[in-house]
Amino acid sequence: MTGIVITGASGRMGQMLIETVQASDHAHLVGVTEREGHPWVGQDLGLAMGQTEMGVPVVSDAIEVVKDAQAIIDFTAPAATVAMAELAAQARAVHVIGTTGLSDDDLAKIKAAARHAPIVRAGNMSLGVNLLVQLTKKVAAALDEDYDIEVVEAHHRHKVDAPSGTALMLGEAAAEGRGVALNDVKDSGRDGITGARKRGDIGFSAIRGGDIVGEHDVIFAADGERIVLRHLATDRAVFARGALKAALWGQGKGPGEYDMLDVLGL
Amino acid sequence: MTGIVITGASGRMGQMLIETVQASDHAHLVGVTEREGHPWVGQDLGLAMGQTEMGVPVVSDAIEVVKDAQAIIDFTAPAATVAMAELAAQARAVHVIGTTGLSDDDLAKIKAAARHAPIVRAGNMSLGVNLLVQLTKKVAAALDEDYDIEVVEAHHRHKVDAPSGTALMLGEAAAEGRGVALNDVKDSGRDGITGARKRGDIGFSAIRGGDIVGEHDVIFAADGERIVLRHLATDRAVFARGALKAALWGQGKGPGEYDMLDVLGL
Amino acid sequence: MTGIVITGASGRMGQMLIETVQASDHAHLVGVTEREGHPWVGQDLGLAMGQTEMGVPVVSDAIEVVKDAQAIIDFTAPAATVAMAELAAQARAVHVIGTTGLSDDDLAKIKAAARHAPIVRAGNMSLGVNLLVQLTKKVAAALDEDYDIEVVEAHHRHKVDAPSGTALMLGEAAAEGRGVALNDVKDSGRDGITGARKRGDIGFSAIRGGDIVGEHDVIFAADGERIVLRHLATDRAVFARGALKAALWGQGKGPGEYDMLDVLGL
Amino acid sequence: MTGIVITGASGRMGQMLIETVQASDHAHLVGVTEREGHPWVGQDLGLAMGQTEMGVPVVSDAIEVVKDAQAIIDFTAPAATVAMAELAAQARAVHVIGTTGLSDDDLAKIKAAARHAPIVRAGNMSLGVNLLVQLTKKVAAALDEDYDIEVVEAHHRHKVDAPSGTALMLGEAAAEGRGVALNDVKDSGRDGITGARKRGDIGFSAIRGGDIVGEHDVIFAADGERIVLRHLATDRAVFARGALKAALWGQGKGPGEYDMLDVLGL
Repeated sequence: MTGIVITGASGRMGQMLIETVQASDHAHLVGVTEREGHPWVGQDLGLAMGQTEMGVPVVSDAIEVVKDAQAIIDFTAPAATVAMAELAAQARAVHVIGTTGLSDDDLAKIKAAARHAPIVRAGNMSLGVNLLVQLTKKVAAALDEDYDIEVVEAHHRHKVDAPSGTALMLGEAAAEGRGVALNDVKDSGRDGITGARKRGDIGFSAIRGGDIVGEHDVIFAADGERIVLRHLATDRAVFARGALKAALWGQGKGPGEYDMLDVLGL
Repeated sequence: MTGIVITGASGRMGQMLIETVQASDHAHLVGVTEREGHPWVGQDLGLAMGQTEMGVPVVSDAIEVVKDAQAIIDFTAPAATVAMAELAAQARAVHVIGTTGLSDDDLAKIKAAARHAPIVRAGNMSLGVNLLVQLTKKVAAALDEDYDIEVVEAHHRHKVDAPSGTALMLGEAAAEGRGVALNDVKDSGRDGITGARKRGDIGFSAIRGGDIVGEHDVIFAADGERIVLRHLATDRAVFARGALKAALWGQGKGPGEYDMLDVLGL
Repeated sequence: MTGIVITGASGRMGQMLIETVQASDHAHLVGVTEREGHPWVGQDLGLAMGQTEMGVPVVSDAIEVVKDAQAIIDFTAPAATVAMAELAAQARAVHVIGTTGLSDDDLAKIKAAARHAPIVRAGNMSLGVNLLVQLTKKVAAALDEDYDIEVVEAHHRHKVDAPSGTALMLGEAAAEGRGVALNDVKDSGRDGITGARKRGDIGFSAIRGGDIVGEHDVIFAADGERIVLRHLATDRAVFARGALKAALWGQGKGPGEYDMLDVLGL
Repeated sequence: MTGIVITGASGRMGQMLIETVQASDHAHLVGVTEREGHPWVGQDLGLAMGQTEMGVPVVSDAIEVVKDAQAIIDFTAPAATVAMAELAAQARAVHVIGTTGLSDDDLAKIKAAARHAPIVRAGNMSLGVNLLVQLTKKVAAALDEDYDIEVVEAHHRHKVDAPSGTALMLGEAAAEGRGVALNDVKDSGRDGITGARKRGDIGFSAIRGGDIVGEHDVIFAADGERIVLRHLATDRAVFARGALKAALWGQGKGPGEYDMLDVLGL
């Protein structure tokens, strides 16, 4: 049984992670964190959630629980994640990072921490999306520019950026397959008099509405035929399950930076 | 048998219209037009197309053929269409207009011509799209703003503008159903840090690739469910068939401006 | 505040209904039922669910709680639903029925009960699906048999019948729009040497996999174009919200049988 | 310039092949065949098609034209194809076979002919579909049986069998990826009380309507996520282009049986 710490316990992703770890036969919670001042801090997690006692403390100072953990699963914000990377390195615990928006400086600090313990970091922790990234690269390499590539994504109404990080990851994979740099061929946000599509461009469209968890299409459109590689995430639990899988996979691995392709053996 | 004139005979749409009229039991070609200097002008249409003689003249001066026609089908350019509207009015022939990009001034001239003969004008002549416009209005009226509306369209790589005229027509229908002005709620070309989706907005996305004839989705996305109204055009012939239907429907109608909803009785 | 009883409290739909009523400002739980012998019976609902006390009894004999209720929401099995219809009629409470598989005999008993109190019964309680039923009828009436109608549905791997009740409801609506009987034109489960599609048929396909909540497409496919009316349910909560809406709508209504089109004013 | 013979010249596929070869810079027509008694036989192809003279004879006895050809492209019927395989072998010409419905006996005869000349045979000659077959195998191998596999195809109303040959080819690829025999896990034509989906099954659905050229989805559906591999053929020309590509690729190849994966280097 791998002892897990989850950060940001009361958030949507934190709750999903807690549920996922509790349902696992291979992992158990040793503690969870919340920001200082949050009403849950100092309580038992079960009682804080309005359920029965769990014997799992909610703390604001992560060090109290990280020292007893074999892995930390962390979908929070850049500053908290960088601080956690250092703590995890000291504890020689696997640090699974789903946090997005990390700066180059943040990434350098994470790299430094990874000299002491394994870190698994991914923009999207679902098995399906990571498989799709691979397929996209392969198909883009197999087809020439007669096949126009378009990445179309749909997300819930609360999402604040476009295209999604996963859409960009798929675009990067397509560009890599074609041997070009995404920045040179990216065409996002078509509107108005655009002129004809430029050969070799990779287009992006972003649909927003309702509570869509995340849908991504990579379209290869030629004269007379289309190939579409599609991923639908319908339950945030797929990201939580992927993160737990990464935490378990990391046990016994040496220090270093890993991604979900490593975890999934793709 | 209704006598038809087709403009722009050698173009993609012109060719499709010629084929459609020839296949009809209710209409026949009395002549077709091409721009002055085009090699087909002065020839028989059949011979010009590398086939057997048809007895149909290709002319550059439309008046030669319009005088013998009961209808003109016209998918050309604004200037040519405005000139044709006057000729058609003089000949008391039905003028079916599929031309897009008409200015307010052009529209005023067409309105004037419609005092003398029936004019049927539509941004999209397919039965299916016009039905979708109606459904969109109805659904937008039935649902409140908990249902986010997104219009997604896909067209071939040669298309120079985004969103498509048909997508805008669908957006107008949605806005009308909701009792708002499209300009106040239109959100097209999302890219970068957009912030969360604004309640009540109508979003537009444009996919470009291959030889896609025309696909339109109107999405109503709420928490936990989505309704999608979709139209796929897979053969330009649907536009030609719609135009011919309009030409036949217009026979015996009084002067005035009509659209495909009139023709289809929707 | 309308007092609600929910049947089958521990099931997937029961749990969803409990959550929905608890989140409502217009309704509260007066009690829930479970079958005799179920461990929850006799306990407080909150404690039974491993949460804090709610003051809501779990009973096996519905009469104990129905007498204090203004509405019963019931997604159980035919025998239990027929018995509940009688109890609800005696209590003059609105009976919302989502149970499927009712026999003609069951329906006759429900009809009898509806002479004393309002009953709202629907195969699918989502707003979107009921709207789709209406659209399907309208489109089927507007288009002729050049448009082949196909109903395609996808559900989770546990579903034991095909096509889904909702798919059949959509097929009925299409048949009604065309003025035919579904039984005369239904073509479900194509496999092997089928021969060409029979003009006027309504085809059905059933996809099964994963945890798909429910997806329905009604396709109208002609030469060169297709219209597709699509509904996606991504969260069972839409059915629970629809049922609660029906329970609240039914307050003050006279005895009789109603469906979701009545509730939604469609 | 490779000299090509096309069989069944007046059919839909024959006409498409003629157009494709005529548009090619690398191939030209040396003759085409039609069945004995067809009005075109004995005429020049151009004149028979109502166009200008082409210098290409239409014959009923293939031997007259095969002797001058480097390749034969053949989408006809089993008996004609088996006979042609022998002629092509004698002429040492590449025989490209798109004919379906071949019996084991037919296949044995084709195998025998392939000892003398190259034969390229494929159930579907589009680049996209053949790529999809490969992806399907790869994904099926990467994912376990938590991912339910469903193959959904849509074709025009004239198609007489279900599922399509291409759907079965995709199903075979999925089964191969999983290391099982398709016949042991195939579930086609769901209808009625089916029981829950059997773990490991590969399901098939067939949609029929309008003039749909050919659409195939391979769905991998798990709890919370789906991967879909989709191919859309929107113009029969893709099959003709694939066949011509095979004819050109076969020049200089040794005797033997090949498929489109060989041609495409996949």
